[in-house]
This record gives sequence, structure tokens and C-alpha cells, in this order.
Amino acid sequence: MKYAIGIDYGTESGRVILVNIENGDIVATSVTPYPHGVITGHLNNRTLGKETALQVPQDYLEVLINSIPEVMKEINPNDIVGIGLDFTSSTILPVDENLNPLCETKEHENNPHAYVKLWKHHEAEDEAKHLNKIVQQEQWTKRYGGTISSEWMLPKVLEIANDDPPLFNQVHLFLEAGDWVISKLTGNLIRNSCSAGYKGTWHKETGFIDNETLQKISPALNDIYKTKLQGNVQSSGTLAGTLTKEISVKVGLHEGTPVAVGIIDAHAALPGAGVSEPGTLVMVMGTSTCHLLLSDKEVLVPGISGVVEGGILPGYFAYEAGQAAVGDLFAHFLKNYQTNFETLSDEAKILHPGQSGLLALDWHNGCRTPFVDTTLSGVLVGEKLSTTPAEVYRALLEATAFGTKVIIDLFEKHEIPINQVIATGGIPNKNNLLMQIYADILQKEITVVQNDQAPALGAAILGAVAAGAYDSYSRAIRHMASNKTIVYKPNKDNANIYIQLFDMYKQLSTFFTEQSSIMHDLNHLKGEKKYDRKPMEHLQ
Amino acid sequence: MKYAIGIDYGTESGRVILVNIENGDIVATSVTPYPHGVITGHLNNRTLGKETALQVPQDYLEVLINSIPEVMKEINPNDIVGIGLDFTSSTILPVDENLNPLCETKEHENNPHAYVKLWKHHEAEDEAKHLNKIVQQEQWTKRYGGTISSEWMLPKVLEIANDDPPLFNQVHLFLEAGDWVISKLTGNLIRNSCSAGYKGTWHKETGFIDNETLQKISPALNDIYKTKLQGNVQSSGTLAGTLTKEISVKVGLHEGTPVAVGIIDAHAALPGAGVSEPGTLVMVMGTSTCHLLLSDKEVLVPGISGVVEGGILPGYFAYEAGQAAVGDLFAHFLKNYQTNFETLSDEAKILHPGQSGLLALDWHNGCRTPFVDTTLSGVLVGEKLSTTPAEVYRALLEATAFGTKVIIDLFEKHEIPINQVIATGGIPNKNNLLMQIYADILQKEITVVQNDQAPALGAAILGAVAAGAYDSYSRAIRHMASNKTIVYKPNKDNANIYIQLFDMYKQLSTFFTEQSSIMHDLNHLKGEKKYDRKPMEHLQ
Repeated sequence: MKYAIGIDYGTESGRVILVNIENGDIVATSVTPYPHGVITGHLNNRTLGKETALQVPQDYLEVLINSIPEVMKEINPNDIVGIGLDFTSSTILPVDENLNPLCETKEHENNPHAYVKLWKHHEAEDEAKHLNKIVQQEQWTKRYGGTISSEWMLPKVLEIANDDPPLFNQVHLFLEAGDWVISKLTGNLIRNSCSAGYKGTWHKETGFIDNETLQKISPALNDIYKTKLQGNVQSSGTLAGTLTKEISVKVGLHEGTPVAVGIIDAHAALPGAGVSEPGTLVMVMGTSTCHLLLSDKEVLVPGISGVVEGGILPGYFAYEAGQAAVGDLFAHFLKNYQTNFETLSDEAKILHPGQSGLLALDWHNGCRTPFVDTTLSGVLVGEKLSTTPAEVYRALLEATAFGTKVIIDLFEKHEIPINQVIATGGIPNKNNLLMQIYADILQKEITVVQNDQAPALGAAILGAVAAGAYDSYSRAIRHMASNKTIVYKPNKDNANIYIQLFDMYKQLSTFFTEQSSIMHDLNHLKGEKKYDRKPMEHLQ
Repeated sequence: MKYAIGIDYGTESGRVILVNIENGDIVATSVTPYPHGVITGHLNNRTLGKETALQVPQDYLEVLINSIPEVMKEINPNDIVGIGLDFTSSTILPVDENLNPLCETKEHENNPHAYVKLWKHHEAEDEAKHLNKIVQQEQWTKRYGGTISSEWMLPKVLEIANDDPPLFNQVHLFLEAGDWVISKLTGNLIRNSCSAGYKGTWHKETGFIDNETLQKISPALNDIYKTKLQGNVQSSGTLAGTLTKEISVKVGLHEGTPVAVGIIDAHAALPGAGVSEPGTLVMVMGTSTCHLLLSDKEVLVPGISGVVEGGILPGYFAYEAGQAAVGDLFAHFLKNYQTNFETLSDEAKILHPGQSGLLALDWHNGCRTPFVDTTLSGVLVGEKLSTTPAEVYRALLEATAFGTKVIIDLFEKHEIPINQVIATGGIPNKNNLLMQIYADILQKEITVVQNDQAPALGAAILGAVAAGAYDSYSRAIRHMASNKTIVYKPNKDNANIYIQLFDMYKQLSTFFTEQSSIMHDLNHLKGEKKYDRKPMEHLQ
């Protein structure tokens, strides 16, 4: 028996799985919570900004040192063909000449800017706004639906340049944390095409942003791709190198074991869910939903999160779209209504489509695709004195499905066909009502992958292919990806009612984005100052 | 010391108060719950329609027999100058030639149509729709904002004509229950101008609907105002007669004690709250809000519930407008969110206007004024994942205040000035946050009457004037009406923010009534069949 190791670095913990490369069986799993978790509120004795979210790089190595030996207990290291990993993104850290994190020095141990800035660190809103103003007319921004997010690499780098110039000057490189871990495993500095493409504005043909534009954004960014952001971009899943002697001893594997170039966690779910060809939409459904799709061609679809050549699998353009609140929206509802999931689901299941007279817009965390606007908000229409919590809950489930239909229609309008829909992530196996509603509203079969470790499995597949155990992704995926599925088929009667509700959803959506400024006006009145920092003007 | 008795017939019980006519002190109170309450679901062994709500006439007499002696315990009957009463409306019953209720006969004891149909009996929706189609072009419907409600006299009479012709033929008279109680007290049949005007389409100059129109509505209604709806209309608060020997013995008062013509319960609150002149809006705030206003002139204001000459006090046109869900809306919220009023109020109080980023339309029970549309529904815009129940609650409080501002603006636009606002009813003394929000949003001082027995007090005032204890309503009201008040003054900073929110409220309101049919389309999909009866076509 031969095995590949897949490592899935999430927000709170790292998961290591051992996968039989012949049949995809996951023979062992070990999860290591990050010892320092997500650092918010305070760092040592220092008060942090309200939207600050940091991590400690050493925690990522703990996952390797703790969980790899754990899954290897009954396995001979000779039988490990290769290792792949996926990581949250854009999760970045500043390092010195030896690729050691700056936060590990005495000098910077209390400086938040020296730590890992997690993907959901949201302190770079001003920087993102400033950057978007300058680049919004450039053709390349269309690959990102027209907007660069504050969660991405450049705004986060700019935040440090603005807030802490002395530290910024000491930084040798800014790295994606996933690439940093690969460097610790192999000794090689490689930037993975997935993070670089989706979160770093990199393009396979045209590279990064030109220097003239960088200077317009900030003098601090002059030549940054030759200095602090230097490093070759290599396709996710190609060979990054082999385990160094130092790390191999610590994790109990052989020196020289092949390691694949990393990939973003959600994106790893696409191969993990068994997809190796265009035409299949993968919905990674958790707190939010990430929609992934391969295609032979590059089309600039407005409002998507990104399109990257070789961004997931070599040889294909990979599209990403998103809905900002899915599981989070349901959890918000359960919390505010002080009710529980089981009771609510039972009551919501016996309702018919349209029976509640309710219609919601699912923008409670803004709208990612197609409006790319975090300031949009949720709407509920149709509430009566007789409305029950279960009816409101079901309207929210339906709203997220309508949001997905908007995305599918958008791709199809731009001639990127979608023949099949696969759902994976934490939610699909826990909420069969939701999946049936998706089938009815999308009017497509929804295939739910039963195992919810698609990202780790995807990483293991990348590891096996990088190691040469398979000569193609499609063969590796056929053998290794999860093939236990449940299929939800659309109910025609329901679909006919949902067509009418979807038409109203679009009407509401048009009103609140094109006809009325109420949502933005409400935000303006709210005037919420999210964090206390000197205003942008003083920082430049 | 001299006293007047005020009797307030509500939905669940009757309240009798004894009032010192010199200073308005309420020296005794007695409440008698109706022994049969509100009959829904079943009558004896017969299953009732879902929207059926009946009462037993004898229960009203129980109130007299039980509660009058109770308040008279320490008082000499010589000291009672007069009696007044108010009653829910349109609450009607069919009687025979001797004014005895038909439900009291063996023949009809199981027939729901022979019982009192309470104001909130809602089985006559089809009849109201049919009637409105025929009369909507007539000039007189403008006195009612253009729409006759299914709660009113004619649709309820028509329901019996359609559903039970044999019973209908046996009916000698249909009476407002308040007028029936007066007939039991005095032996005189008088229809009070308040119920006749607001709920019976009566007008002081032009009388009732002409017979040609009645025949168009249904052959059963031919000459109905000369037959089953005959009887003189007399101004509420004028002298109806004096106690008969029979009843005086039962209640322990002197034969010959003067009794005033009745009035609708909410409307009695206007004199009870101390109003005897034009320019003061009285908000009777309970499950819903009833807005009452005197004026020297009759203007046909679109969307109001009614304008009736002498409808409340002789010599004035009295306007009624309404909001269909106020206390009911807050109760609905508390129930669905499973939270309690105190916690929520404390949290909502520390919020600033606009801080939540939320805006609601308060149409959860439809919109009475100005759209006269029970099928409209509630809306909430601006919800985020961080939204708290207290924020939603406060948005609902604000929405009802915006709804009131729409009504005040409507009157002022039609040159009926409002100089002062008085709040009475069950809510104002229990919810000071709500009252402050009203002051800030209406930009007017809100005077809250501290005693919440304004209707019973109003009835007692009518009794005193009818008896001749005062020569004018204004003098009686100055002496007897409640003068303990709390005044809420508008906060200017808040008002400035609410001006902007009110503008958005109107935008939303316009969208959902003029620009979009979403609310009606949702109702159409809902296709809720409220009760099982043969369709209208078969019944005519």
C-alpha cells in the first residue's frame, strides 16, 4: 500500500490525513488546534484594533510535528509517496533574510504587524479603498470582478507600510503562510499560483501590477515585486521540492519525500470533490460559500472573485465566485431567535415553497458576487403577525439558494456552461433541507460529497501527483477523490413556484442596488467607525 | 358628592367605573369578564369557520348586574347623575320584535349567525370585496378612505343573508351590541351616531346608502334601512332615556336615572383624554393604534378610516385613522425572538437613532392609513450578521412612529392642523422608550395620559352631560377628564437623524405600493385560503 499525506490548514486548526492512493481511503486523521488560536483583542499587553486577527507562525509547525507522527503510527515512512498542503489565504507574514518570522525576535514580539495577518484580519479597509480608486480603471481588475479586497496581499502589505514604516523597512519578504510552511518543509521559496493569482493580483501571462501603478498607490510599493514580494510563482500541485533533513527528523518521515506546491484551502476542495474537468461547479459551503469552476477559456465575468490560469489545476482557467454569508447567516438567525437547529428544521421542512409569503435577500454580510459590496445588507419582505421563526429560517435558506442561482446564471450568461453542481464543506451533510431547496431553486441535481474533508483530500491528491504517483490529475482524482455521494433531484412543482420567487428576488436586488441608495444611506447614518486609527490622509 | 357611571365594553370584559363629576376622581372600579368570552373554534358541538368570533349577549347584561352594584357599595343611588357607555364596534347581533337576541331561542341556540358577531369576526371578507367593487366609485366612500371593511355592519349583515337565508328572514333588526344594551337600559331603540357613522356608512346630511345601490349589492338588502336596519340615529352622548324599573332593580340604581347614547370604545377615549376642541390628535395605543381628531370642517382625506359629523362630540367633524399593528407587532416580535420586554427595552434604550443601520415598514398586519390594504406586509432592511434582537426591536418601535408621522403629515397636507398629540391606551404608560421615539420622530411633544381608563372616563363624561350635570362638553371635560400627564419633549439631535430615516421609510413605502407588486405577488403565491366556505358565486 502507498499513501499520500494531505495537510489542511484552517482558521482554528490544522488537519493531517493519510490517504490510500489506490482507492482514496482516509486511513488516519489527526487535528492539531493552533496553540495560540486566532489572536484578537490583545497581543501580550497591547490592545489590538477591533478588526485585527493574528496568528503565530510556530503554531503551523506544531501541526506538522504533532499530527504527522500521529497519522504515521502504523505506517512505514517508505510507503509515503508525497505530501500536499492547503492553507487559508490571504494569510501573510513578514520574514527576514533566513525566512524566519519577524515576530519571533525580542524586538518585535509585541508588534502586531510582525505577526501573521489572518485572512479575516480586516484592518486594511482604508488601504483597499485607496488602492481600488487608483486601479479600478485598469483592465486587469476585471479578472477580480473589478475590486481588490482588503483581505488580500497588497492592502495588508500597505497597512504595514502606512502604520509602521520602521518595521516595513526591516521586512525582507512578505509571504503567504502556506508558502512559508512549504519553505520550512523543502528549503525552497516558491509562491503558489493559487494564492498569487486569486489574492496577489498575479497573472500567468502578464505577471504582477506594473511599477508605475504601484508608485501611484504608494511610494512604499516602488519595485516591491523585485524586493519584498519577489519569488517565483509556480503552479499549485507541481513539485515544490523534497523534505529537508531537519524537518524530516521532526515529523518522522524520510528526507527527500516529495512535497507539492500549496493551494488555498477552499480551492483544494475542487479536486478533493472529484472534479478534474470544466463544467462542474463546486460549492464549498461553510460560514460562507466559495464557488469554484474550471474552464478552457478566460472570460472576464463581472462580480466574480477571480479567474486564474492554473489557479487550481494546471491547464485550466479556474473561476472563483462567492457568497459572503451562508452558514454564518443561519447561525446568526439561531442565535437571535434563541431557537435550535433541529426543532426549526423539522418545522421548516413541512412548509411548501411560497407558503410563508416571505422573501429575503441574503446580504447580511454584504454581497460578494455579483455586486462586490460588503456594505450591502439583508432584507426580509412579507412578514405578518402570524409569521413563525421556522418560516423566516426557511426564507433565509431559500435566499442563499437564490444567491447561488444568480451566480450560475451569471456564468452561463458569459458562456461558461455549468452541467453539474457538487456541494461540499461543513454544511451539506448536516442540512438536507437546504440541499433539497438548492436542487429545487437551481433546477439542477445537487451531488453532495459525503465526506467533509474534501480540502485535505485535494491536498493529498496534489501531493501524489507532484510525487509522480499519477501521470495526470484526472487519473489521480478518479482514484483518490471521494466517490460516496448523495444526489438531490429537483422537484418540478417546487421549481415552478421558485421561478416566480426568484424573479421577485431579482427585482428586490435591482431595487436595492440600482434604484435606491437606502442601504448605503443607512450605513452612512450608522457611521460606524470600525477601528481607531489615524485617518488615511495623515498616513501617506 | 355627585357621581357619573362610565361603562367600557371591551373585547374580553366589561369595566364599570364610578367618577366624581367635580374633579374626575375614579372612586371605584369593577371589571366583569364575559362568562363566555370570545367564542371561536366551536359553538356547542358545531365547528366554526376559522375567522369566526362570537359573543353571548347575556354576558353584557352580566357586566351591569355584577359590576354596577360592586362600584355602588358605599354610594347612595341618589348621588348618581347619569350613565354613559362605550362599546367595541362593529359588534352586531340579530334580534326579534321584542329586541330579544335570536340566539336565546331553542331554535337558534346552535346557529352561529344568531349570535353576536364581534368586531374582529372576519368571515365577511368575500362580502366586503363584492360590496367594495360596487360602491368604490361612489362619492360617499371617500369618507372612509375609499374602502368598506369586512368588520363593518353591512358586510356582516350580508354574510348572514348569503349563508343563512332562513335565519336572515326571521331577523327583525340587526343592532350594534352597544345600542342593544342601551335599549335594555332605557327601553328605547336608538342607533348611536358614532357606530352608525364609522361602521354603518351613515352620514348626518345624506343618511345611509340609497336603495338602488343596495339592490345592486344584493336583492336581500332591498329597503334594509326601512326594515332590519331601521331606527333613528342620535348623537353619541345625547340623552338616550332613563333606566327602566326592571333594570334599575337588578343593578341597584334608581328608576329614571339618565343614560347617554353610546359611543365606540376607542372614540370615547377622546373626551376621556381631555380633548373637547379641534387641533389635538389622540392616539389610542393598544394592539393597534386608533387616531382621533376633531375638526370644524369635513375634508375627504384619502386613506383615513372615516370622518363623521357628530361622530364623537356634537358640533364637530371627527376623524379616525389607524395603524393595524402596534402592540401586536411588539408582542409578535417578543414571541418569535423568545425574549422578554425588560431586557430588550434596556438594550434598545442605549442605542442611538440610526446606530443599528436598520429600517422597517410596520405593515405586519397590513396598512390601514393611508393605503387601506390588509394584504401589505412587514419589511426589514439593513440586517447584518452583527444585528442584535434589541436593534430589530427598536427598528420596529421606530417604524410604528414613522407610520404615525405619515398620518399626521396626511392630515396637515389636507389643511387639518395638528397642534398637540395625546397618547392614551394600554401602551403609553408601559413603554417610555416608545413615547420618546414618537416625540423625536413626530417632532412634537407627546402628552401621555397617566390613567389608562380614558374610554370608561369618556363614557362617564357623556353620561354626566346627557344628564344635564354640565351644560357643555368642554366644561365637563375640563372638570372630569384625566389631567395627570407625562410630557415627552423632542430631542433635536435625534429628530435630525430621524428626518433622514423617515425619508427612507417613505421611499420604501412608495416602492412597495407604487413601483413593485412583490407584496401582492407573495400573497398570491401564499394562496392562503383563510376559511372553508362555498365560493361567493354560489351564494348569491
